[in-house]
Amino acid sequence: MNVHDQAMRPLRAEAGRDAVVVIDQRLLPHRLQLQRLASPQAVFTAIRDMWVRGAPLIGATAAYGMALQCHVDVSDGALAETAALLRSSRPTAVNLMWALDRMARVLAPLPAEQRLQAAWDAADAIAEEDVQVNARIGQHGLVLLQAVAARKPGPVQVLTHCNAGWLATVDWGTATSPIYQAHAAGIDVHVWVDETRPRNQGASLTVWELAQAGVPHTLVADNAGGHLMQRGLVDLCLVGCDRVTARGDVCNKIGTYLKALAAHDNGVPFYVAMPTSTLDLALTDGLAQIPIEERSAREVTHLHGLAADGEVVEVCLAPQGTAAANPAFDVTPARLISGLITEHGVVPAQEAALRELMKDRV
Amino acid sequence: MNVHDQAMRPLRAEAGRDAVVVIDQRLLPHRLQLQRLASPQAVFTAIRDMWVRGAPLIGATAAYGMALQCHVDVSDGALAETAALLRSSRPTAVNLMWALDRMARVLAPLPAEQRLQAAWDAADAIAEEDVQVNARIGQHGLVLLQAVAARKPGPVQVLTHCNAGWLATVDWGTATSPIYQAHAAGIDVHVWVDETRPRNQGASLTVWELAQAGVPHTLVADNAGGHLMQRGLVDLCLVGCDRVTARGDVCNKIGTYLKALAAHDNGVPFYVAMPTSTLDLALTDGLAQIPIEERSAREVTHLHGLAADGEVVEVCLAPQGTAAANPAFDVTPARLISGLITEHGVVPAQEAALRELMKDRV
Repeated sequence: MNVHDQAMRPLRAEAGRDAVVVIDQRLLPHRLQLQRLASPQAVFTAIRDMWVRGAPLIGATAAYGMALQCHVDVSDGALAETAALLRSSRPTAVNLMWALDRMARVLAPLPAEQRLQAAWDAADAIAEEDVQVNARIGQHGLVLLQAVAARKPGPVQVLTHCNAGWLATVDWGTATSPIYQAHAAGIDVHVWVDETRPRNQGASLTVWELAQAGVPHTLVADNAGGHLMQRGLVDLCLVGCDRVTARGDVCNKIGTYLKALAAHDNGVPFYVAMPTSTLDLALTDGLAQIPIEERSAREVTHLHGLAADGEVVEVCLAPQGTAAANPAFDVTPARLISGLITEHGVVPAQEAALRELMKDRV
Repeated sequence: MNVHDQAMRPLRAEAGRDAVVVIDQRLLPHRLQLQRLASPQAVFTAIRDMWVRGAPLIGATAAYGMALQCHVDVSDGALAETAALLRSSRPTAVNLMWALDRMARVLAPLPAEQRLQAAWDAADAIAEEDVQVNARIGQHGLVLLQAVAARKPGPVQVLTHCNAGWLATVDWGTATSPIYQAHAAGIDVHVWVDETRPRNQGASLTVWELAQAGVPHTLVADNAGGHLMQRGLVDLCLVGCDRVTARGDVCNKIGTYLKALAAHDNGVPFYVAMPTSTLDLALTDGLAQIPIEERSAREVTHLHGLAADGEVVEVCLAPQGTAAANPAFDVTPARLISGLITEHGVVPAQEAALRELMKDRV
């Protein structure tokens, strides 16, 4: 997508194949700063500390981490160690595991001297496939927005949570891909953007993305979505996901479940944009089986923002020493989900449909 | 309740009966600052700009606004004008209208020379009754917490939204009153405190109150409550209200509806602490009939916090010029509510029960 009318991706390999360049997303929307990552350790830090975030993007970034490892030591032991390190950077999103497994499958059978080039080729392929997958998710999701536009006057009102935008992927985004494609097709679309506490990815990333693309949008507190749906101001909810089980339970950013409940209570369709790399057929019961990352209490009690003097400062919101809990994800049961928008089409959040979808696919 | 072991109320009349003193709640938890209000205009500003907030507290403060008016002009016209001004300060909470109507009923039949003293007496009575009402709500709610404590080991886990604490009333609070009484009775109670964006009354007021009282508590993002309930970590939700209709629909801080949905979905009892002054028997359908205050977009895009240098600063969370919507309240349908804890006992959120409760009562 474009930033100030220049094409940009949140992750790109340098032409010399010795580093990748990422947007340091911790500084958005106040500063657009690129970071060069030239070692697997740097990639680990960038994922753990959320310079890059979003399930598809951390998968692709981790793949490049393996390529960077190949400059140092391509032995089976070294590769396994780096894969384990990268795997530990974030526990919830399955794309990370998916990308590392795929890199291992590519590299394991190869002789040492072929591993470096093969690793860069494989990481590039993962990144490029992500772009294609998201473009296709956009095409399938576009049909849903077109149907709303055909049915009613005025803008198609979409509510989204967190950032499942191009910043969360290599390009296009997952949940935002249908929105960008609808906007490009001339459909009048307006997006309600959940702030997404505690890390504010909606306020800082999704709003920034939509503004760059010229898509009309309004920021709301996470608390407001139910009220908007009660008032008939939301035609469709559209969110991303970090892991989806075989029966269609969706693990996504904390608070997604609350929006799905409100959508269900108000007859608003609730769709999840899901690249199939996010599907974990080994799991069925999302609530029981998906590990939920517990992040630092400080993310709840403190927050970064732009002060009047133009400096980004950290401020404390609560009394000194306040205890806080910070589960980063929750699980939305399949029963609350209208459909999963995959690169292969829209499918119901049901085990038979998901197993059928993945039959004969890796 | 106590602050640093000294008894304090968020509203008290000065002994000379020529002003009231309030806590400027905009500055908590970082600064405890009192403000003297000596005119109805000052009271209007304090309510509109939320130096004082919380349905019961704004009712009592507005009553004193009428008493302050009586120092200037006690004519019917002047009183009506001041009542209209105060009525316009916040549109949603019915206690404001209730208190002003009660003041009018007291003052209207009196000759001019008796109005000043009668107004102070009536405002004092409204304030003192609020304290008694909340104490009784605490006693009735305590029974619910005792029942949980008797049923299971470990702490009684309560989730609350916004601040329905003593800062929202003249003393005790509504939703917090059972909690304070349970804590005083030696029950092991732990409170999950919703941050309550966008004004953060949970993080800044409820946490501060509970810390002063020594009640164990943990701050969470508003997004986390559904996840906590899915994991069995909430025994009971307990919130306040700003207006309740005859059929038991509850208007309360934005986001309450989402928590009620999650409670319903997980079999967690959802109770609303409701002084009967909050009941508006003239309305039935909360969604259709209760006016919802739309507040400034800046409350969503900007936020105050304590910087590392000890200064309270305002920071911006979103890109410059971001549009934001800020509905301050939502309506939770009666069907999601387990019971209303009133000063007269716990009643179901049902029209017949509410009309029976109010029979023969003003």
